[in-house]
Amino acid sequence: MSKIVGIGGSLRSESSSYQALVLAIARVQALGVSAEILDLRQMNLPFCDGTSDYPDYPDVIRLRETVQEADGLILATPEYHGGASGVLKNALDLMSFDQLSGKVTGLISVLGGQSNSNALNELRLVMRWVHAWVIPEQIAIAQAWKAFGEDGKLLDEKLSQRLDKFAESLVENTQRLRGLG
Amino acid sequence: MSKIVGIGGSLRSESSSYQALVLAIARVQALGVSAEILDLRQMNLPFCDGTSDYPDYPDVIRLRETVQEADGLILATPEYHGGASGVLKNALDLMSFDQLSGKVTGLISVLGGQSNSNALNELRLVMRWVHAWVIPEQIAIAQAWKAFGEDGKLLDEKLSQRLDKFAESLVENTQRLRGLG
Amino acid sequence: MSKIVGIGGSLRSESSSYQALVLAIARVQALGVSAEILDLRQMNLPFCDGTSDYPDYPDVIRLRETVQEADGLILATPEYHGGASGVLKNALDLMSFDQLSGKVTGLISVLGGQSNSNALNELRLVMRWVHAWVIPEQIAIAQAWKAFGEDGKLLDEKLSQRLDKFAESLVENTQRLRGLG
Amino acid sequence: MSKIVGIGGSLRSESSSYQALVLAIARVQALGVSAEILDLRQMNLPFCDGTSDYPDYPDVIRLRETVQEADGLILATPEYHGGASGVLKNALDLMSFDQLSGKVTGLISVLGGQSNSNALNELRLVMRWVHAWVIPEQIAIAQAWKAFGEDGKLLDEKLSQRLDKFAESLVENTQRLRGLG
Repeated sequence: MSKIVGIGGSLRSESSSYQALVLAIARVQALGVSAEILDLRQMNLPFCDGTSDYPDYPDVIRLRETVQEADGLILATPEYHGGASGVLKNALDLMSFDQLSGKVTGLISVLGGQSNSNALNELRLVMRWVHAWVIPEQIAIAQAWKAFGEDGKLLDEKLSQRLDKFAESLVENTQRLRGLG
Repeated sequence: MSKIVGIGGSLRSESSSYQALVLAIARVQALGVSAEILDLRQMNLPFCDGTSDYPDYPDVIRLRETVQEADGLILATPEYHGGASGVLKNALDLMSFDQLSGKVTGLISVLGGQSNSNALNELRLVMRWVHAWVIPEQIAIAQAWKAFGEDGKLLDEKLSQRLDKFAESLVENTQRLRGLG
Repeated sequence: MSKIVGIGGSLRSESSSYQALVLAIARVQALGVSAEILDLRQMNLPFCDGTSDYPDYPDVIRLRETVQEADGLILATPEYHGGASGVLKNALDLMSFDQLSGKVTGLISVLGGQSNSNALNELRLVMRWVHAWVIPEQIAIAQAWKAFGEDGKLLDEKLSQRLDKFAESLVENTQRLRGLG
Repeated sequence: MSKIVGIGGSLRSESSSYQALVLAIARVQALGVSAEILDLRQMNLPFCDGTSDYPDYPDVIRLRETVQEADGLILATPEYHGGASGVLKNALDLMSFDQLSGKVTGLISVLGGQSNSNALNELRLVMRWVHAWVIPEQIAIAQAWKAFGEDGKLLDEKLSQRLDKFAESLVENTQRLRGLG
């Protein structure tokens, strides 16, 4: 059985990217796959200083172990200045090929304004660099402030269906690529 | 008179990107331009949480004010996982159009392995997004562990000349674009 | 006096990117700058085969000479498969640093679907590679089939204003960067 | 059984990217997989004009049919101006989701100068856009003029091993992703 881990790249208390990540993880679980979220707001991580050990930060070990045991990943980021958040990139910087290589990854970005693929493109190239797979399906949620209903679901039915397909592709192709089929 | 500010994206104690930044800033100063470095290792910055005020972190104000007063910028980053460091991106995330728009920017990346433009490309698109200028000249220093001599200078004469031209272009075009000529 | 040349990357008979280019060039001219369009539909260009001479294609020389004499460029492309058109890239491949280096460039993309920066990002990095300048302002025209009125003008007032600013920035910064101010 | 099709993006008579493609296809075949090359120098393709039919160019149909029947693709391009060749992009422009979606793709670039990932990054994003898969392994052959021996093989042993792994990954993951395992 495959296992999927989601990482949210925002530290906002009311984070739309976290909301999108919760929806995606729920859909993955509805497909019978074990999944969990690493909520960076609940973790105490240092800035990466290029060294490998952070004895004062046990959450670095928790981050690494949880990702290492995963088969698939969902990275959800707010788009800040046309890129992934520094917070998310720093969490990736704290890991290495050991944790990330070969993992099957789905990407979500959440934007205040119009839709765009900049942060998604950046993360696709970064994850490629560590020899992870990135699925072709990807989600950009524009104008995030009006994208979610009071129940936390996406108001745009088409986008909601795309999120369904995204989760299905991630689950199916994680099993294929990880030889778990 | 124009003013140029350098920001180094590494927190390593022996940072090659900081070393490269020091060389670049020295060349800018040799051209008669006022320049200073914001050493992120000496600053206490928070992770960006999407809010605008960080009352517990006076260095956020120092970062913003110093960049806001600058005409030109040099961003120097280690390439981590084929991207700019999360540390540097987070520092940019803590700023906005107010500080960054219209600034004339030169980009430097430092890599452990072979030369590559990935982090430079990423930063070029991010700085464009905040409506900064990025000069065409850019510096990628490959195999950084053997790039510098004991005197801190670049051993590769050709690369050293490229750094000269980089500094000249930054100084000259900052004056032109900022109407200071 | 500076001179600006526009190149359209579409061979469609009813090309929206050509339409956008016509509008942009008209605004440049309204600012008192000499400007002309190279309409690739009216030119007979070969596929680039890596050689430098194409004796059977006098339009290669016309392309090169016209661009070489320009101070600024506008590149307008349809976004095909999330990239610039092969037609436009091939025209750029037929030129070299001699024609392109140092030119001040504005980028326009036209899309059938939602707005996106992919083709613009690609062209920004390509033009950087030949040491051209690319202005921070850029234009992406989404859902091009409903973007233009019968008079050929943009229906979206905000987008129309952005095109004004784009032309102003191109004209002003071409003069600054080319030392023509 | 899966089938893999290689497309070379150069029209040079002595094309290094074609040479690299021949090596890659030979390794794919050595793994027992059916493979063929579409040599664009031997095909008569038009510039894409945004229409779908090119009755005067039967090779458009041959291109589309051959790619449509493939499970996997290898795209080999010279890096021109920090991007894929216009020739290759134009060939991709002549196809659509029908031919390209879901295909498992490996990317090769060949450069005159230092190694770089620009053309590879561009093609990765373009192939993603048409919902193809791109394997994490990719090949950039720097200083192509001295990369190959008289027997047509790569002189750099390490690079040659990387090409082996590239072919293995393409074959193995094409079978997995296409459900042919």
